[in-house]
Amino acid sequence: MSYFLLDDYANMEPYLPGEQPAGKWIKLNANESMLPPSPAVKKIFDEAEYDGMGFYSDPHCHKLRIAIGDVYGFDEKNIFVGNGADEVLAFCMMSFFRKGMKIAFPDITYDFYRTYATTYGLDFKQFPVNDDFTINVDDYVNYDGDVVLANPNNPTGLAISVDDIERIVKKNPERMVIIDEAYIDYGGESCVPLVRKYNNLLVVQTFSKSRALAGARIGFAIANEDIISDMNKIKFAFNPFNMSTLAIDAGSAAARDVDYWKKCINEVRRTRDDFKKDLRKLGFKVIDTETNFVFITHPNYRAEYIFAELRKRHILVRHYNQERIVNYLRITVGSFDVMLKVLYALKDIVGDPDESTYK
Amino acid sequence: MSYFLLDDYANMEPYLPGEQPAGKWIKLNANESMLPPSPAVKKIFDEAEYDGMGFYSDPHCHKLRIAIGDVYGFDEKNIFVGNGADEVLAFCMMSFFRKGMKIAFPDITYDFYRTYATTYGLDFKQFPVNDDFTINVDDYVNYDGDVVLANPNNPTGLAISVDDIERIVKKNPERMVIIDEAYIDYGGESCVPLVRKYNNLLVVQTFSKSRALAGARIGFAIANEDIISDMNKIKFAFNPFNMSTLAIDAGSAAARDVDYWKKCINEVRRTRDDFKKDLRKLGFKVIDTETNFVFITHPNYRAEYIFAELRKRHILVRHYNQERIVNYLRITVGSFDVMLKVLYALKDIVGDPDESTYK
Repeated sequence: MSYFLLDDYANMEPYLPGEQPAGKWIKLNANESMLPPSPAVKKIFDEAEYDGMGFYSDPHCHKLRIAIGDVYGFDEKNIFVGNGADEVLAFCMMSFFRKGMKIAFPDITYDFYRTYATTYGLDFKQFPVNDDFTINVDDYVNYDGDVVLANPNNPTGLAISVDDIERIVKKNPERMVIIDEAYIDYGGESCVPLVRKYNNLLVVQTFSKSRALAGARIGFAIANEDIISDMNKIKFAFNPFNMSTLAIDAGSAAARDVDYWKKCINEVRRTRDDFKKDLRKLGFKVIDTETNFVFITHPNYRAEYIFAELRKRHILVRHYNQERIVNYLRITVGSFDVMLKVLYALKDIVGDPDESTYK
Repeated sequence: MSYFLLDDYANMEPYLPGEQPAGKWIKLNANESMLPPSPAVKKIFDEAEYDGMGFYSDPHCHKLRIAIGDVYGFDEKNIFVGNGADEVLAFCMMSFFRKGMKIAFPDITYDFYRTYATTYGLDFKQFPVNDDFTINVDDYVNYDGDVVLANPNNPTGLAISVDDIERIVKKNPERMVIIDEAYIDYGGESCVPLVRKYNNLLVVQTFSKSRALAGARIGFAIANEDIISDMNKIKFAFNPFNMSTLAIDAGSAAARDVDYWKKCINEVRRTRDDFKKDLRKLGFKVIDTETNFVFITHPNYRAEYIFAELRKRHILVRHYNQERIVNYLRITVGSFDVMLKVLYALKDIVGDPDESTYK
């Protein structure tokens, strides 16, 4: 730590990114897409005006905001874009949350909320999810602060209904409700239409999952136009030209290729549902995820053991050192062929459920 | 403004980006490069692993930090990278400056410092530059707070010496000194070597000027390893995967193509020096810039008039509504052919210096 670091950050924890090992791995630990992005994105890269790369990108990101607005039926004034959903969330936090302000989220959820809240000194409350990992919506309805929820939740993959979200939003118009819909395209119902009705709702989505552009860093928020305008002002005083020309162009192309996007989503859902069935045959308890990942546990084998055994076979999945889910694994749903390999590996590890012993 | 915007931002001013008009313009208002980026960057785009775009970028940006470190003779631990120098500056401010902390910069300089300081509530002091636009270094040596200086300065193009910077840095090791060297490649002497000697110096540079990658958004800082580590921790809690895979790859390729980079710099310097001579022949007073732009005024014509006349001819330059420089124009140095066009236009506007009348 340098002499200069603000003591505001005394509680900051070191960041532990997911493993990115070198060499040949089946990487199923970050819920990335194994399908390529839209062919329209390939065209953007192929035709990228390399000579024009010397000119600044559009700080308003009009083209991308208009494209997203068109797809979701909103004006660009309702759309904020950033380098991934994390940056969008961070600009939201920076605009509307100061040190000491109250915010609630589940004990088991996307870890970025806790990381941000800890580092930047928010007064956060983590409501425990139920034993079946469902969220107790009343915890948030009755809470006297702001709320951030991943829906479907990560890593459990469970979704809450739009009616439940509306209950939280409606209960207190002075409370901001942030719904992180990173995985909504794979299942569950989006609460984006509620934005027309409520000024205290901000919905965040990403191009890193269903649009297969995690490496291009594109995320967005849909909210009331005043909220978006505030976030843009904050962005303009922090990093006006936040997105590159290629990210803006690639994102616009991917957004507008709705047919390809839906095709990819359907393919992942089909593979996921098959994979879930096969996992159950191997004796796994499979949470009923609506995402591009599964969340599983086995009655006879510790998750840590299965994780290590998969690792030996160069298959990387996600294991959490968090008490309530220490015996669970999160596995991204890749292509059909890849998931077949994973199934064979798992069968090799846990064997026939009737013959297995606890390891 | 939404109900939710923090009143911390009461002093926030709306951002006014430089004009980006549609249609065919000679755009000389943002000091962009008119030369293409390194051919090595073209190769990166051509061979971009479009299929791999679905995977997250490296949150540590190792490849780019190592490439920059190799060029400047530092370990990657001394290098921080971000989406443009603005983001690098913003993460620096966010890590080391809280509301109410003191920071000084000149009254005439890059406007981002004031925008950031106003929005995020720093107690900033703007020391007036001298009448000839030179900086009075003692103002900063004797100041009892932190310092940010663009060197060479923008829009004046004037540089201070490394000895002067060392005086500011050395005077008080508890003061952080940020030197923004966006234009250093075109002239002046870089203070990067001082980083080995002082723990309170942070030098910011950019790929948006001499490396012709403004549209790709790449900036970096060189500083003591503890300072860089702090900034990375803050970044990891704000937006871990801040840079795209393509920005990391393109930046690495551009950094390593040192020969092409030097060639481009020399070309711009030659064009600049010719342009300066010709401007003087037209009666302009030309500040002795060491950058890829000139800063000029004419004894007989108001800058606003020349600006408007150039605009009519579809040539866009920069005019400032700031009292002390209201009669100056900043013009980016483009290619030789482009600057010839600009000269003809200016000759058309201001005519022969001996015959002109004040307009």
